[in-house]
Amino acid sequence: MSKKFLVSIVMGSDSDFPIMKETSEFLKKFNVPHDIKILSAHRCPDATSEFAKIAREYGIKVIIAAAGCAAHLAGVIASHTILPVIGVPMESKLDGLVSLLSIVQMPSGIPVATVAIGKAGAINAGILAVQILALSDESLSKKLVEYKKELAQKVEEKNRILQTDGKF
Amino acid sequence: MSKKFLVSIVMGSDSDFPIMKETSEFLKKFNVPHDIKILSAHRCPDATSEFAKIAREYGIKVIIAAAGCAAHLAGVIASHTILPVIGVPMESKLDGLVSLLSIVQMPSGIPVATVAIGKAGAINAGILAVQILALSDESLSKKLVEYKKELAQKVEEKNRILQTDGKF
Amino acid sequence: MSKKFLVSIVMGSDSDFPIMKETSEFLKKFNVPHDIKILSAHRCPDATSEFAKIAREYGIKVIIAAAGCAAHLAGVIASHTILPVIGVPMESKLDGLVSLLSIVQMPSGIPVATVAIGKAGAINAGILAVQILALSDESLSKKLVEYKKELAQKVEEKNRILQTDGKF
Amino acid sequence: MSKKFLVSIVMGSDSDFPIMKETSEFLKKFNVPHDIKILSAHRCPDATSEFAKIAREYGIKVIIAAAGCAAHLAGVIASHTILPVIGVPMESKLDGLVSLLSIVQMPSGIPVATVAIGKAGAINAGILAVQILALSDESLSKKLVEYKKELAQKVEEKNRILQTDGKF
Amino acid sequence: MSKKFLVSIVMGSDSDFPIMKETSEFLKKFNVPHDIKILSAHRCPDATSEFAKIAREYGIKVIIAAAGCAAHLAGVIASHTILPVIGVPMESKLDGLVSLLSIVQMPSGIPVATVAIGKAGAINAGILAVQILALSDESLSKKLVEYKKELAQKVEEKNRILQTDGKF
Amino acid sequence: MSKKFLVSIVMGSDSDFPIMKETSEFLKKFNVPHDIKILSAHRCPDATSEFAKIAREYGIKVIIAAAGCAAHLAGVIASHTILPVIGVPMESKLDGLVSLLSIVQMPSGIPVATVAIGKAGAINAGILAVQILALSDESLSKKLVEYKKELAQKVEEKNRILQTDGKF
Amino acid sequence: MSKKFLVSIVMGSDSDFPIMKETSEFLKKFNVPHDIKILSAHRCPDATSEFAKIAREYGIKVIIAAAGCAAHLAGVIASHTILPVIGVPMESKLDGLVSLLSIVQMPSGIPVATVAIGKAGAINAGILAVQILALSDESLSKKLVEYKKELAQKVEEKNRILQTDGKF
Amino acid sequence: MSKKFLVSIVMGSDSDFPIMKETSEFLKKFNVPHDIKILSAHRCPDATSEFAKIAREYGIKVIIAAAGCAAHLAGVIASHTILPVIGVPMESKLDGLVSLLSIVQMPSGIPVATVAIGKAGAINAGILAVQILALSDESLSKKLVEYKKELAQKVEEKNRILQTDGKF
Repeated sequence: MSKKFLVSIVMGSDSDFPIMKETSEFLKKFNVPHDIKILSAHRCPDATSEFAKIAREYGIKVIIAAAGCAAHLAGVIASHTILPVIGVPMESKLDGLVSLLSIVQMPSGIPVATVAIGKAGAINAGILAVQILALSDESLSKKLVEYKKELAQKVEEKNRILQTDGKF
Repeated sequence: MSKKFLVSIVMGSDSDFPIMKETSEFLKKFNVPHDIKILSAHRCPDATSEFAKIAREYGIKVIIAAAGCAAHLAGVIASHTILPVIGVPMESKLDGLVSLLSIVQMPSGIPVATVAIGKAGAINAGILAVQILALSDESLSKKLVEYKKELAQKVEEKNRILQTDGKF
Repeated sequence: MSKKFLVSIVMGSDSDFPIMKETSEFLKKFNVPHDIKILSAHRCPDATSEFAKIAREYGIKVIIAAAGCAAHLAGVIASHTILPVIGVPMESKLDGLVSLLSIVQMPSGIPVATVAIGKAGAINAGILAVQILALSDESLSKKLVEYKKELAQKVEEKNRILQTDGKF
Repeated sequence: MSKKFLVSIVMGSDSDFPIMKETSEFLKKFNVPHDIKILSAHRCPDATSEFAKIAREYGIKVIIAAAGCAAHLAGVIASHTILPVIGVPMESKLDGLVSLLSIVQMPSGIPVATVAIGKAGAINAGILAVQILALSDESLSKKLVEYKKELAQKVEEKNRILQTDGKF
Repeated sequence: MSKKFLVSIVMGSDSDFPIMKETSEFLKKFNVPHDIKILSAHRCPDATSEFAKIAREYGIKVIIAAAGCAAHLAGVIASHTILPVIGVPMESKLDGLVSLLSIVQMPSGIPVATVAIGKAGAINAGILAVQILALSDESLSKKLVEYKKELAQKVEEKNRILQTDGKF
Repeated sequence: MSKKFLVSIVMGSDSDFPIMKETSEFLKKFNVPHDIKILSAHRCPDATSEFAKIAREYGIKVIIAAAGCAAHLAGVIASHTILPVIGVPMESKLDGLVSLLSIVQMPSGIPVATVAIGKAGAINAGILAVQILALSDESLSKKLVEYKKELAQKVEEKNRILQTDGKF
Repeated sequence: MSKKFLVSIVMGSDSDFPIMKETSEFLKKFNVPHDIKILSAHRCPDATSEFAKIAREYGIKVIIAAAGCAAHLAGVIASHTILPVIGVPMESKLDGLVSLLSIVQMPSGIPVATVAIGKAGAINAGILAVQILALSDESLSKKLVEYKKELAQKVEEKNRILQTDGKF
Repeated sequence: MSKKFLVSIVMGSDSDFPIMKETSEFLKKFNVPHDIKILSAHRCPDATSEFAKIAREYGIKVIIAAAGCAAHLAGVIASHTILPVIGVPMESKLDGLVSLLSIVQMPSGIPVATVAIGKAGAINAGILAVQILALSDESLSKKLVEYKKELAQKVEEKNRILQTDGKF
C-alpha cells in the first residue's frame, strides 16, 4: 500500500466495480488521492484484516467499503480500525435491503457510516469522504460549497427545459 | 482451548446465553462434550479469527455460532475454517429477520448452516450438530432415533390430555 | 436407490435443475458420489416420505433439498430421517424470502440446515455437505483447505486485473 | 376416528388450542359435529399422513388445519386428500406473516383455503366450513343468513351506544 | 345471469384475464359450468353488490374473485353473500403481497378463502371450487382422485427424463 | 343524518374510537361541525353504501374513514361519492402496514387521501379536513396559520426546558 | 409564479415527469389551471421553502408533490403551508414502498394526503385535487359525477367485449 | 449558538432525549464539547434551516440528527450544509425500519451517514463523530485505540464470568 492515498475504496467483488467507480470518479473530480481494490471478508479474511489494521499508519483517512448480501466487509474492517468507515450497500435480495441491514445494524462500539443502496450511495460515499476531509482542508470546503450550488442550478436548468421545450 | 470438546458454541454477547444454554443442554443430554464462550466479530475480531483458525486442530468437529442484528459472527468464523458452522440468528429487529438474513445470505464459497431464529433455532442447532456427529457414531444415531420417537409420543400424549381433560 | 451414493440431492420441480446442477457440479469436483431427483412434498408425498425413511439405510449421509414458495420439501424429509438435511431456498415471491422462511423457521426438534437463496445457496449446499463428509475423510479435508486458498487467490488475481487493466 | 364428525380441526401444537377453540365454538353454535386434535407435520408425520388419507372415508367433509412458523401442516394434509382444507396461520414471526406465507403460497395442484392470521382466522375458518356444508344443508344456510344479519345489527347497536352514552 | 352456472369467476380488470382463464380452463376440464366477468368493487360498486346478492338464488355455489393492489373485490362480495368466496391475489406491489394481505386479512365474520398469488392461485382456486362441489358429486370426487394421481405421475415422468436424457 | 355536519368520521369498529376521538377533538377545537359513527364495509355493507351515496346531499364536505387489517372502508365509501375521502389506517398486522397498504393502494379512478397509521394519522386527518374546508373559509385559514405557529413555539418551549432543567 | 393557477404540481426530478404528466393531463381534462415544476427538498431547499411559503398568496389551492426514495418533498412543503398537500410516491426501492412510507408517516401536526405509488397515484392525485376544488365549484362536481359513471361504463364495455369476442 | 461546540446533536422530539443522551454521554467521556437541542423539519422548518446554514461558521464540525417515522430531519439539515451529518433512526413503525429508510435512502448529492436504529446507533453516532474529529486530533485517536481495547477486554471479562460462575 502506497502512502499517498487519503481514501481507500474496497469492494467485495469485481462485479461491484461499475458502481464503485462512481465513488472514484467523484474523488477524482475533487482531486482526492485514493486507491480502489477488492477485499472479501469471507474469501480473503486475513488480507482484509491486515489491510484494516495498517490503513491508518499508511495515511488513509477514510475507508469506503462496498458489499452485498450478508455484507460483512464494512463491519469487519471497522472492527480493526479507528478510522471512519463508510459502508455502501450493493444491490441484492429485497432491492438491496438485505445488504443495507447487514451493514447498518452494527452493535454499539463499532459504527459504520452507511449511505444509500447502489449508485446513489456510491456517489454519496465519495461526497461524505470529502466532507470529512474538508474539515481540515479549506480548499475542499470551497469546492463542496460550489458543488452544492451546482446541484441547485441543475434543478433550475431542468426546470427551464421543462417549461420551454414544449413538453408542458 | 482444551482438546476434549467435539462442539464449540460461541455467541456474540452474554445476553445470548439464556437462549444458547438450550443448545448446551441438548448436547449434555446426548453426552456430547462441548464448550461455550463469548466471541465477537466486532469487539474482539482477532480472538475470533484465532479461535476459528485453530478449532479444527483442537478436535472440534462442529461450531455453533449465535449472533444478532448485523450478525457477522458465524460468517467470519466460517471464513477461517473448513468445519461445518451452524448459525443461530438471535432475536433482533424485525423479529430476528435482520439477524437471519445477515447470517444465511452468505456468498458462494463460504456456507453457514442456518437454523431458525431464537430458542427453536438454538435447540435445532444442537440436534443438527448431533446429526452430523452421528454419521460416524452409531450410539448417537440410536439416541436420535429414540429422540424422534419421543417427539411423536409427546404429541400423542398431549392429544390424550386434550381429549380427556374436559377442555373439549 | 443404489447403495453407492453419499449425498442425495432432491428438488421440488425440474425447473430447479439449472440451479441445483451447481450443487451436483461441486460434488463432482470433489468426487463425492451423489444422485439427484425430483420429489414433491405436495405432488408425490408418499414417494417423498418413503425416500426420506430409507435414505439412511442405503448409505446416504447428507440430503440436500431444494424447493420454492411454501417450500415444505426439506422439512417433510427432515421429519422422517435423522440424517442432516440441507435446505436450499429457490427464488420465489419476495426475492425468495418466502421460500427461505418456509424452510428455515422449523419448529424445535426438526432442524433444516438452511443456506442462501438460489445459486449461491446451491453451491454452498454442496460445500456444506463436503464439510460434513470431511469430518471422517481426511482427503476431503485437504481438498477443502485447498479450495479455501483458491478463493483467496481468485480475489488476489482479480485485484491484479483491476489494478493493471487500465480500468482504474 | 369416529364416523360422526363433519369437520376435523387439527392444530400443530396444544399451544394453538386457545385460538382454535374459537373455531370449535363457532361450529358448536351451528351444531356442526366436529373433533379437534393435535397433529404435527414435523413431529408425527406418519400419523398426520394417515389421518389425511382416511379422513374422507370417515365422513369428514372439511379439514381445518392451524399451524405457525414454517407451517407445513395444512399443505401436507392437502397433499393426501381431495377434501377442502382450510389453513389458519398462527401468530409467529413478523406478526404471523411467516405462517401465512408458508400456508398460502402452495404450488398449483394442491390448494389450501387460507384465512386471516390468528383469532379472526380461527372464527372465519369455522364460518367458511359452515358455508361449504350449507351448500347441501338448507338449515345451515338459514342460520348463516341470520348470522349475517346479526353482524349488521351489532354494528347498529354499537352505534346507538356510541351516540347515546355521552362519549360523543 | 343465466341459471346454469355452478361457479362464477369475477375479476377486477380485463388485464386479469390471462391469469384467470387458467381457473376457467381447469373448470372446463372438470365439466363444471361457470361464467367469468369483470366486476370492480371501486369502479362499479353497485353492479358488484347486486351480483353478490343474487348469485346464490341463481344457483351459483362458489364465487372466485380475483383482484390486485388494495384488492377489495373478494371481501366486498363476501360481505353480501353466504356462499363460499375464494380470493385470488393478482400480482401487484411487493410481488403481490399487497393484494394477498388485502384479501386474506378479513375481519372475523366474513371469511375469504384465499389461495396463492397469481397463476398458481388461479389454478388452485379452480381445484378448491371443484373440491367443494365434489362433496355432493361423487363423479367430481373420482376425477379429483384421478387428478391427484396424475400429479404424482408427472413427477415420476419428469424424473425419468432427468435420469435418462443425459442431463445428469 | 342531520344536515348540520361538514365532516363525517366513520370507523370500522368501536375499538377504533379511542384513536378516532382525536380527530373529533381536533375538529371541535376548530369548531367544525361533524358526526362520528361506526360503519363496516364487511358487516353492514348496505348501510355503508347508503351513507356514502347520500353524504354529499346532506352537506358533508369531507369524509374521514378509519379501518384496520384488510381495510376496505375508505375505498368502498370512495367508490360511492365524489367527496374527498381521507383514510386513516388503524394499527394492525406489521405495525399497521397491512391497513396502510389496503387503504392507500387504490386503483386509478378512486383516490383515498391516506394519512399516517394510528393516532398521528387520526389528528392529521382532522387537520387535512380543516385545510380543505379552509380553502373557502378565511377564519379557518387564520386558525390554521395560528396552529402552525404554535407547533413551532412548542418546540422552542421544549428546548427551553431541555436546556434549563438540568437534564443537559 | 403566475397568479392564474389553482393547482401546483411539483416533482423531485425530471425523471418523474413521464408519471406526473398523468396528473397534468387529468387536470387539463377538467380544465383546472395548473403548473408543473421540479423542486428538490435536498438539492434546492431554499427554492422549495420559498415556493411553499408563497404558493397560497398566489392563489394556489392544492399542491401535488411527487418524490421517490427518502421522499421528503411533500413533507417539507407541508411544513411551510396550510394548503392541502397531496403526496405521490414514485417507484423506488421495495416497489416504491420506501417512498410511500417516507411520505405518509408524517408526525401529527403536518399531514400529507398520500395516494398510491406511481401512475395510479399520479392520476388519483389529480382526481383528489379536483374533488377538493369541486367543493366550491358545482361545474367540477358535475364533471366528477360524470367521470364516475364513465368508470362503471368502461367496466360494462369491457365485459361486453370479454363475453362476445370468443375469448370465453 | 455558542462558538464553543464541535458537535451538535439535534433531535426531532424531546421524547428522543432518553436515547440521544447516550450520544452526549459518549462525547462527554471523550471531552468533546457539544450541545443538544430539539429541532423539527416539520414543526419548525425555518429554525431548522437556519441552524443548518450557520452551524459551520459557528465552528461545528459534525452534526448528529435523530428522528423517527418519516424522518426528514437529517436530510433537511444535510441539504443546507457541507458538514458531515450523521443520522440516527429512532424506533418507529416496523421496528424503526421506516425511520432508517427515510434517513439512509438519500438521493445522490446529499449524503447522510446513517447508523443503527435506536440506542446502539446513538452510541455509534458519538463514536463516529469522534473518529472524524480524531483525524486531526491525536489525543482523540489515542483514546479511540484505548476504547477499542476495552471493548475486547470486556468480552474477555464476560467470558471469565461465564466460565467460572457455575452457569456453565
